[in-house]
Amino acid sequence: MGLKAKPLQLNTADAGFEAAFAARLHWSAETDAAIEQRVADILADVQKRGDAAVLDYTQRFDGLQAADVKTLEITQAELQAALDSLPAAQREALQAAAARVRKYHEAQKKASGESWSYRDEDGTLLGQKVTPLDRVGIYVPGGKAAYPSSVLMNAIPAHVAGVQEIVMVVPTPQGVRNPLVLAAACVAGVSRAFTVGGAQAVGALAYGTATIPKVDKITGPGNAYVASAKKRVFGTVGIDMIAGPSEILVLADGTTPAEWVAMDLFSQAEHDELAQSILLCPDAAYIAEVQAAIDRLLPEMPRREIIAKSLSDRGALILTRNMEEACAISNRIAPEHLEVSSSEPHRWEPLLRHAGAIFLGAFTSESLGDYCAGPNHVLPTSGTARFSSPLGVYDFQKRSSLIEVSEAGAQPLGRIAAELAYGEGLQAHARAAELRLNPVPTMRDSK
Amino acid sequence: MGLKAKPLQLNTADAGFEAAFAARLHWSAETDAAIEQRVADILADVQKRGDAAVLDYTQRFDGLQAADVKTLEITQAELQAALDSLPAAQREALQAAAARVRKYHEAQKKASGESWSYRDEDGTLLGQKVTPLDRVGIYVPGGKAAYPSSVLMNAIPAHVAGVQEIVMVVPTPQGVRNPLVLAAACVAGVSRAFTVGGAQAVGALAYGTATIPKVDKITGPGNAYVASAKKRVFGTVGIDMIAGPSEILVLADGTTPAEWVAMDLFSQAEHDELAQSILLCPDAAYIAEVQAAIDRLLPEMPRREIIAKSLSDRGALILTRNMEEACAISNRIAPEHLEVSSSEPHRWEPLLRHAGAIFLGAFTSESLGDYCAGPNHVLPTSGTARFSSPLGVYDFQKRSSLIEVSEAGAQPLGRIAAELAYGEGLQAHARAAELRLNPVPTMRDSK
Repeated sequence: MGLKAKPLQLNTADAGFEAAFAARLHWSAETDAAIEQRVADILADVQKRGDAAVLDYTQRFDGLQAADVKTLEITQAELQAALDSLPAAQREALQAAAARVRKYHEAQKKASGESWSYRDEDGTLLGQKVTPLDRVGIYVPGGKAAYPSSVLMNAIPAHVAGVQEIVMVVPTPQGVRNPLVLAAACVAGVSRAFTVGGAQAVGALAYGTATIPKVDKITGPGNAYVASAKKRVFGTVGIDMIAGPSEILVLADGTTPAEWVAMDLFSQAEHDELAQSILLCPDAAYIAEVQAAIDRLLPEMPRREIIAKSLSDRGALILTRNMEEACAISNRIAPEHLEVSSSEPHRWEPLLRHAGAIFLGAFTSESLGDYCAGPNHVLPTSGTARFSSPLGVYDFQKRSSLIEVSEAGAQPLGRIAAELAYGEGLQAHARAAELRLNPVPTMRDSK
Repeated sequence: MGLKAKPLQLNTADAGFEAAFAARLHWSAETDAAIEQRVADILADVQKRGDAAVLDYTQRFDGLQAADVKTLEITQAELQAALDSLPAAQREALQAAAARVRKYHEAQKKASGESWSYRDEDGTLLGQKVTPLDRVGIYVPGGKAAYPSSVLMNAIPAHVAGVQEIVMVVPTPQGVRNPLVLAAACVAGVSRAFTVGGAQAVGALAYGTATIPKVDKITGPGNAYVASAKKRVFGTVGIDMIAGPSEILVLADGTTPAEWVAMDLFSQAEHDELAQSILLCPDAAYIAEVQAAIDRLLPEMPRREIIAKSLSDRGALILTRNMEEACAISNRIAPEHLEVSSSEPHRWEPLLRHAGAIFLGAFTSESLGDYCAGPNHVLPTSGTARFSSPLGVYDFQKRSSLIEVSEAGAQPLGRIAAELAYGEGLQAHARAAELRLNPVPTMRDSK
């Protein structure tokens, strides 16, 4: 057949490289004004009419008619039944994946999510108290693209953080429920689940309705309506990142079987025609081998149409001068997924500054990380790994500073604070510090 | 004189309490559509015309004419000269505050900002690599309200995180520079500084111009234009929180001198007429004492007009049934600053779940925390302490997951991942895992 997957071939030594590279990377989050207005209207309506609005939109968009929102709740017994109904291999895989994800996030909590404090010489206590959020909402896409792994990756960190109530919303077009998604909710410790989706679900979680509780933060992926709704309710509640198309970048030194690398590029490309798969390699013969493997493997892939379009329109095979240059280019891209497909991954890892997740060595396919290695698969996209992090336990915790100043400590601190407060013209600040001094000085003018 | 500061007096035992309490707390971030449009235009112009647009807006809004943006840069020598020019007491106070803020943030980095990893039984390495952002921008308000303490509180955590380049922008209306702000920049380790402000400064930092470098994240407070601009560039760069009016909540058991508490309420109220100062106390006689202290102290405060309006319009003195109820109400408010003005602060602290910073005991005035105790004074406002945290070292770091799966580890993990990937209909994901299995199984259909 005529289906072709031809990533753009580039060479960093070519004069036109920079321009061609920039053009291939270019992606802009189209903010569709019509969607934004629609979402604003839906959110306002949910805020105003609560359950009634949720029912209306669920009927309109999901073709799901219900007498009241209570009947849209999935009970714990139904979640358990879904888990029990799975084929044994699938159930066990889900449970094994959940156990590994839980273990990793418990280590993460211990390494970076515990309260801490110290006392300095004058007896002053300083620190931070780390506490879980009270209640969070998890958005899970429904319909054709149903991802139980997303349920695990969002709910487990919240559970490990100690969140008491995890509320899942998932659209079920025409009322069709995905048993794998429900089973994942059971395994991951979801507290309540509602078959509601779209901007109306985000609104219900952000503002609360008579039936759906208001949460403190909403995480999880969704379509353009969901993304726009999350951005709009940000501030009223917390949100995680707004995800762009998925990306993989493979740094290859030519020692990994070319078919493995080709399949890793496919595994990103099959998500979405906008997904981006890039190979950086200093070995031209190996790049040719990977292209040959792509040609050979493509026909057997059920999602070959998407893969072909994604690779041809957005993919790239880039010949670099050496691995050091490949690492430098990778840092410019700051990819979501970064495979170091090399026999010496630890030689290159220290050079890699910006990436959502770094997969080291030929055996570490990105798909292991997507499902069960342990780390979270919700990762920063579109270069935002320059300033943001994988979803983690820390996203379901918040910190409160702790300060306890002794009478002795209040003397030097009070003098410093007063000096600076007068300098800023904030005399009540200065005076509040001075009232704790012994003796209390006369109030000064500001300078 | 007739100036009065009369916070609303409430009693939790009264029938009308809930409604009156809700009305007093109500505050909505007015999103002024005209400001938003204006900001969108300025940002688009800066993105398009770069330096030329920055020069135009700086002349128009700050009355500052310059031949090029280079002349708007403040040199390191000028920052140092500003520090040298300060009166000794002020210089020493600034340096002492910076040293304490630095020490606290170093402890914070150690407690929650270091890389970590572990190997599980099959030799698989899992962890997170924590790296500083490359370059950040710090917005510092200029003109009348010049806060050198904000420079310390934004730049020092970035510096401790290891950020290589800290770019400060500060408007200087009519070209008037505030020596305390410049001195603070010197002390805090700011790399470059430009006398540019407003949405144009945010745009320059987000997109970069020929002269002002593009940064990865922008932090720091500003007016409505700056806040709107930060919200709009979010995604292109990271941002810290969008701050609402400042708040203090004092939980008092009646053992702190009433004048101290009154002055602490003033120290919040003097910021802004919209600032909110609330006292929760189970002792009616003490509440009366605090009101008497307010009446007595107000006339001597230079910012008494602002204080009176803030306390009368937004303040509250609330009589509670007991301290436990006071703690529960505090959790509902999730205040920015929470003073536990009690002889037993550690009895109540465990009951306090949501707050930006908790100040324990009578000697710990909020103003000590604002300037020099060590913790950050950039804190979540308007109830967002339910889901967000003080500015910290973690805001200037990001994390990359690390995964290295051994050949042995790839066998069980590959089988789990393949099972789940087939279940999700992502066959390339499944196949990428299966290619690492030994022997490689035949490709399955999805289920």
